[in-house]
Amino acid sequence: MITETKTSTGETKQGVNILHARRLGIDTQYEAIVFMRSDCPICHSEGFSAQTRIRVSYKDQSVIATLFQTAPDMLEHGEIGLSESAWHRLGILKGETVSICHPRPLDSLSNLRSKIYGRPLEANAVRSIFEDIVSGRYSDIHLASFITACSARPLDHSEMVAFTGAMIDAGDRLQWDTYPVVDKHCVGGLPGNRTSPIVVAIVTACGLTMPKTSSRAITSPAGTADTMETLAPVDLDIAAMRRVVEKEGGCIVWGGAVRLSPADDTLIRIERALDLDSEGQLVASVLSKKIAAGSTHVILDLPVGPTAKVRSQNAAHALSRDLVAVALAFDVEARTVISDGRQPIGRGIGPALEARDVLSVLQGATDAPPDLRDKSIALAGHLLELGGTIEMGSGVKLAERALADGSAWNKFQGICEAQGGMRRPPEALHRHPVFAKESGKVTAIDNRRLAKVAKLAGAPGAKAAGLEVHTRIGTAVCVGEPLYTIHAEAPGELDYSLEYVQENNDIFELTEL
Amino acid sequence: MITETKTSTGETKQGVNILHARRLGIDTQYEAIVFMRSDCPICHSEGFSAQTRIRVSYKDQSVIATLFQTAPDMLEHGEIGLSESAWHRLGILKGETVSICHPRPLDSLSNLRSKIYGRPLEANAVRSIFEDIVSGRYSDIHLASFITACSARPLDHSEMVAFTGAMIDAGDRLQWDTYPVVDKHCVGGLPGNRTSPIVVAIVTACGLTMPKTSSRAITSPAGTADTMETLAPVDLDIAAMRRVVEKEGGCIVWGGAVRLSPADDTLIRIERALDLDSEGQLVASVLSKKIAAGSTHVILDLPVGPTAKVRSQNAAHALSRDLVAVALAFDVEARTVISDGRQPIGRGIGPALEARDVLSVLQGATDAPPDLRDKSIALAGHLLELGGTIEMGSGVKLAERALADGSAWNKFQGICEAQGGMRRPPEALHRHPVFAKESGKVTAIDNRRLAKVAKLAGAPGAKAAGLEVHTRIGTAVCVGEPLYTIHAEAPGELDYSLEYVQENNDIFELTEL
Repeated sequence: MITETKTSTGETKQGVNILHARRLGIDTQYEAIVFMRSDCPICHSEGFSAQTRIRVSYKDQSVIATLFQTAPDMLEHGEIGLSESAWHRLGILKGETVSICHPRPLDSLSNLRSKIYGRPLEANAVRSIFEDIVSGRYSDIHLASFITACSARPLDHSEMVAFTGAMIDAGDRLQWDTYPVVDKHCVGGLPGNRTSPIVVAIVTACGLTMPKTSSRAITSPAGTADTMETLAPVDLDIAAMRRVVEKEGGCIVWGGAVRLSPADDTLIRIERALDLDSEGQLVASVLSKKIAAGSTHVILDLPVGPTAKVRSQNAAHALSRDLVAVALAFDVEARTVISDGRQPIGRGIGPALEARDVLSVLQGATDAPPDLRDKSIALAGHLLELGGTIEMGSGVKLAERALADGSAWNKFQGICEAQGGMRRPPEALHRHPVFAKESGKVTAIDNRRLAKVAKLAGAPGAKAAGLEVHTRIGTAVCVGEPLYTIHAEAPGELDYSLEYVQENNDIFELTEL
Repeated sequence: MITETKTSTGETKQGVNILHARRLGIDTQYEAIVFMRSDCPICHSEGFSAQTRIRVSYKDQSVIATLFQTAPDMLEHGEIGLSESAWHRLGILKGETVSICHPRPLDSLSNLRSKIYGRPLEANAVRSIFEDIVSGRYSDIHLASFITACSARPLDHSEMVAFTGAMIDAGDRLQWDTYPVVDKHCVGGLPGNRTSPIVVAIVTACGLTMPKTSSRAITSPAGTADTMETLAPVDLDIAAMRRVVEKEGGCIVWGGAVRLSPADDTLIRIERALDLDSEGQLVASVLSKKIAAGSTHVILDLPVGPTAKVRSQNAAHALSRDLVAVALAFDVEARTVISDGRQPIGRGIGPALEARDVLSVLQGATDAPPDLRDKSIALAGHLLELGGTIEMGSGVKLAERALADGSAWNKFQGICEAQGGMRRPPEALHRHPVFAKESGKVTAIDNRRLAKVAKLAGAPGAKAAGLEVHTRIGTAVCVGEPLYTIHAEAPGELDYSLEYVQENNDIFELTEL
């Protein structure tokens, strides 16, 4: 870091590269962005082009940021504006100065270029890429290029193992004194598919250890952590989480307090924006989180459907093979379950609405959604067989019993209490049914657009927001019958989602009877 | 565009999606970005993730923009901040309102995904991608993904033809009443390589028509338009350009007044940021500009060197074959010249410094840089043979004569006068020599980092800035001898470039004698 430079007249002076940092409150998510006046010497000097990168340093921290120029009235002379990500990475105190200089080219970008041109990545190269990603040194366009390269040049087995290992090492890792430690994961794409809290309750009631760290929604209407938060606190640190698991054998907490495979969240955002799935990246993403969480036995749910993440049986089988093989390379036993991904699971979509479904299954309510109940039992059954000492084929029976005799519901209440006390999920004030425009049989439901409606209604930020699905594939509906009901906490959000519904009146495909 | 929506209470009202537009003066170059308060219903409702895209409309114009959230104190309630690119694309008047809504997914992105997964692009698919790019509908991450895909899945001949055609059609096209219309182009990477003004002067003095539209620097220290602008006005509209060409047979103007292959500039910015070259994209980029400018016969200069755009003779030959074949598909006769790209051409790097070299060659000065002179003569000779009616092998002699007898210099002055009057290039006040740290023979020069020094010194924004190279590959230098001299218009810029020089003292590679 050079902050003193010789000028043309030979003097040594504080260079132009010391600037007052100003927090602009602009949230760019991952990418660090800085703003400088277009009339400052540095902007002139960088010959400003798109994606100019500069290194900003504060004390012993530094970030590489993309430079945007601003009109003179937005910043004072000698000021630099920082995005939230740049501000937080540097840990700046108000009113302090930062120094700026040219970043050296990232070595890992030449590895990325090699991959693009067709050379498989060695483990060291993969490691250097993920270190740079986790340190925030990639811009969004570098991430986009990396994700595209992994789709255009599919990862082989060695690369998947290297990706998984590098993603684990780029974050924290949990260790447990018990064995086995079981976990489940769904590769996603299905709204409402909130089996985890039920599965944890069942298998821990049956004596297994299942310390579930779950995510908040990144692009979906609810993550397990969002749903669970309407029932109990989930924002536990590692010590608190350990206490819960020691007492109850399991927990359902937000994984954000522990940095498990943090590169994953960074990549997912860009993958979704590009709508690109690389199978190898998916394998590494799923397994790195589970392995970093200390799991030894894992059930992986692969829903298959035209609007789920996995579109065909063939793709599911290929993915299944890779998941099991890569898990094995890390001494983790994985079993995959290929499930029906053509429509949402349960009735609710959105944190509180899904929580209600979870409660009704655990409480054995007569109107509990049967699909959510059956799927939870099936997954719990697999997990009991995989991690337990029971006979193959008897898992489902054991899971059903834990649900029927109330032991799963008791265990769930125990976990909620241990996490800080059980809560009642909130209800939305504003509701609006969406009606069938014609009569017919429901032949398809677009999971993605339905999830979008729930998000536009405010989920997951507004906990009570989302929607309730009233019908399923194969059901006959009459014109004017409600297909689903939107729930919102504010009228503005309800309007915004209804506008989308007006433009998308074919989310439920109806075929003449 | 729905701006009135039914609310939950059944009223029709002006929705939350009408906002007051505020120009923030933030220059993001191509990508349109909008800023909204994090506490506004829409930010809530979009479930904000990175790369959220919204459509912003004003009168009959609309853009798709990336949404950044801001702290409440940056914008008023009901306000939306716009980047310069968003503001200009919409053509908003101060104080007006815009409406926002959800963008429909871009159809062309599914074509892009097909390409990533290995299917060659059909002509229609290519067309839809370029239409979206030119309309500003791609975000920078879409562009990064597209560029990466074209590198990971190289374009075949049909794709190159389709890319070239689509890039031509996405912009304007010039037509000339004369035949032939000649042009030259260098695929670049060589600083100081300012042959075009000399070549235009020579071949038009010999009777050919050469209406040269040239670019300003995108990522280099000077484009031909930047250099020429220090000698005469270059900012001519099409009518003015035609008058100059009718009178003098040629011109050297900035191509910005005519939108020739505008997608090219957009892509180049991201290509450079990723340091990715796709040969197919390069072919389409070069030829689309020449064909759109109405050229019928083109000389293409391919400098080869470790830090030039083309790194090896093999790569140059492959590129040459593709350029000639694709040009032929558009009835354009192209000839390629593979040249020495190991070091800069001429002495000056930067607009005014290169202009001085150009003048010295045209005026036949005894200290004119011989490499610039020889290369200009060679290229002009090829062009005279290609577009003229003279015998093969006699082009160089004719070009030499036009230079020696002063007819090229007279013609150049005539062109400058016709373009608005000849100017004297400015000189920089601040200069700083960079000395050899040891004695030895110059065995390599890093074109890219040398160009970076010139840019950091202020080129091309500061016309007089840049550097003068004092030595060439093969020359012996003594310790303390100046290798090059940095020129800057302001001390701050000089400091900034010197800081980079301190960190990069191996731009000239010296080997012990």
